[in-house]
Order: sequence, then C-alpha cells, then structure tokens
Amino acid sequence: MENAFLQTYVSVDCVVFGFDKGQLNVLLVQRNTPSSAVNGLKLPGSLIYQQEDADAGAYRVLNELTGIKKITLRQFKSFTSPARTANKDDVAWLETTYRNKIDRLITIAYLSLGKTNRKLNLVSKYKTVSWRPLSELPAMPFDHKQIVEEALNEIRSWVEMEPAILFELLPVKFTVADLRRLYEEIYHRKQDVRNFHKKIIRMEYIVPLEEKQENVSHRAARYYKFDRVIYNKRKIGL
Amino acid sequence: MENAFLQTYVSVDCVVFGFDKGQLNVLLVQRNTPSSAVNGLKLPGSLIYQQEDADAGAYRVLNELTGIKKITLRQFKSFTSPARTANKDDVAWLETTYRNKIDRLITIAYLSLGKTNRKLNLVSKYKTVSWRPLSELPAMPFDHKQIVEEALNEIRSWVEMEPAILFELLPVKFTVADLRRLYEEIYHRKQDVRNFHKKIIRMEYIVPLEEKQENVSHRAARYYKFDRVIYNKRKIGL
Repeated sequence: MENAFLQTYVSVDCVVFGFDKGQLNVLLVQRNTPSSAVNGLKLPGSLIYQQEDADAGAYRVLNELTGIKKITLRQFKSFTSPARTANKDDVAWLETTYRNKIDRLITIAYLSLGKTNRKLNLVSKYKTVSWRPLSELPAMPFDHKQIVEEALNEIRSWVEMEPAILFELLPVKFTVADLRRLYEEIYHRKQDVRNFHKKIIRMEYIVPLEEKQENVSHRAARYYKFDRVIYNKRKIGL
Repeated sequence: MENAFLQTYVSVDCVVFGFDKGQLNVLLVQRNTPSSAVNGLKLPGSLIYQQEDADAGAYRVLNELTGIKKITLRQFKSFTSPARTANKDDVAWLETTYRNKIDRLITIAYLSLGKTNRKLNLVSKYKTVSWRPLSELPAMPFDHKQIVEEALNEIRSWVEMEPAILFELLPVKFTVADLRRLYEEIYHRKQDVRNFHKKIIRMEYIVPLEEKQENVSHRAARYYKFDRVIYNKRKIGL
C-alpha cells in the first residue's frame, strides 16, 4: 500500500499567446543541455520551489526564461497523466537538469492572452526564446502539444460563453480581416470572407470608425472598435 | 540546489454541490482515525495512485468515499500553497493514514453541480458521509474551506459569463423564490424579494407555467421553466 502513492515532482508550464499580423503565436524556449538528442523547443516551464506555490512559480519561471514581467497568467488545468514521463529522452533531460531521479512529473498549466507579441528579454538561461505560429508548432517534449491544444479549448469555451474575450486579443482598432483571422486561428477553421464580413457588420457592438488602413498595397480596409457599453446592454444578465 | 525541489504528494478533493429546499449544500465526509483530536468533517478527497491521472483519481475517490457513481466532475483549480501542511494535526492524520512521511501535499480540486442532493451509499470507509448547508460549514482540515470558497468563485464567474448555468442547479420547474434562494446562496447576499421578482418576470427566457405549488401553507407560487431556445436567440454570439 505504501508504494501505491508515488512521490511526485510538480512543475508549471506557461502557454503565452500573442496575436500579431493576423497570426496567433505561442512563446517557446529551447532546451539547453549537453546532449543534442534532447534539445528542442518547448513551453516555458520548470519545477516549482519548495517554498512557493504554483502561481508564484509560474510568474518566476516565465520571467527567468523569457524576461517577461508584467503579464497576467491564469491557471487553467493540471496535466497529471503517468504517461507524461514515458519518453526516455524527456526523463534524461529532466534528471540532468534537476540532478534528481524523477519518476513522475505533473504540471500545472497557465495561459495568457496578448494583443501582440510581447518583447522578450534575451538575457535568459535558454539559448533561444521565440514566438512560433500556432499553425507551425514543432514537435515538443512531454505533452506540451496537448497543453497548447487544451489552452485553445479553454479559450474557445470562454469565447462561447462570452465573445467579448476575443477583443482582449485584438488592438483597440482592428479590421474585420483581423477579427476573422483571429477567429480562424482559435477554431482551426477557415471562414468565408464575405459571410464573415456580413455577420460582423450586423453586430451593434462592433462599431465602424472613420479611419482606414494606410500604406497598404490592397484596398484600404476600415477600422472598427469593440464597444463594451453596447455589448453589456445586449448581454443577458440576471 | 537539489533540495530546492521537494518531492510532493498529490491528492484530489471534490466539492459536490446539491441545491435542495432552497439551500445550497456541500457533500462532506468524516475523517476516521484512532486519534480523536484529528477527527472532523472534510471534503471527499485522497491521494492519487501511481498509475492514475487526477481525473480518474477524482472519480475513484468520490466513489470509494461516498458511493456516488454517475456524476460529472470538473477540474477547476490546483491548491499548492506550502502552508497547506502547516497544521500538525492534519499532517499527523495524513502520515497515519498513508503510512509515509509527507512534507508537501498539493491538491487538484474538482467541482460538480447538482439539482438536488444525491443519494449516498453509506457502505463507505468513512463513518459519516453527509450533506451540510453551505451557510453552516464546520471548521475543516487543510484549506478545505478555501477550496469551497474558490469553487463558489468559479461558479460566480461562470454565471456572470453565462447565466444559463444557474438552471443546471434548479429542477425543470421552479418558483421565483427557488431561483432567488439559489442566487442568494451563490453570492452570500440577500436579495429584495419584490425587486428580484420584478426582474425575473421581465426575462423572456424564464417562462411562466400554468402550474402552481400544491400542499403549501403559504400562498401557492407559480412554477416557471427555463427556455433554452429563447435564451440562445437572445444570447450574444459571434
């Protein structure tokens, strides 16, 4: 009975999204070990310290690995499958990095939404910190690909309950094409350009501005803004 | 450096709500140990096994401790403060129960909403399994009181995004007083009876039925139902 409850290590991993030039990006770091076999891009994450809770650990680790300071991280899910440490390369990297035998590693995942890619401070213990497009994510260690997928699922369920959340990812003034691209990226699904445009301009809380794009080679598109007051009036309350 | 990352035990805890006779209740079990000092009511929870993930652990533990089988548990937050094991009585109970030295214990918390109190199977390893009103919760070990509070916070944030969630806690036909009591319980805040009634009957998606209460000593109240179709038409979509 005693051995049925294995002692476990606990880490945090951060899925930081940035929406930039019509593309949803994810912040990745590169593992840095002597063995070239286990190098590769991964989510910024690390074990938490003995005297810190997971929230404090997430902010500390993201800052240490990427230089990012002012950010809101939201804990969204724990990943606890025993199969997380099924890959020998991953375990070898862990044990080299943390100089301990590690049987089981659970991680508490955080997510953050941003209007653009944040500036990175490259004075980091990792060789490389970079934004990668969601549509072109590389193979990653552990279940990091699944963690990104679940972060998207979480955002989708927020958007379904409360579409206003989409506008947290957009700049104050945006084109209908920006909104469509964001929607396509979150749902992995192409939208018909005309139908999407028709749908959007019917929404009273998406307000056209006088301003249009400048210095673009195609026909300049109109800018819109999200009107929180109209949105809240239309919203179902109790 | 090696010792900065303490090995940790991982548990699950379940906050199971039931709304019954105008009261929001929480399911509790009683700790069962030789030492009377550490007895007391707590959330149903336990360590997870080596070969299971937290979701499987939560369903197993809830079933073992309360007999409940068919239920939907939703992971909502991890509780990781190092201070969780600050109380010596709690640690003594843990170490007696699991026959291991336990320095740090994090827990992954789950919640479930129910229209009424579920039937309990008292063939359980605990002496007592019982529903307790939210307004009269006893002192509980670890951070169980905080876990219940955070579960309520989670429900509040769902209700603010999507009021339809309230009706998952109500029977198919309900009175305005039922809805008011539920709202008061979730928000810990009294509502003015008349104003609440006025507000509710203005909502098109809360539809009056022909039926009224029977066999009540006070004036029989009208039953209402939640109309999902009207709700979805009124709802802001993208």
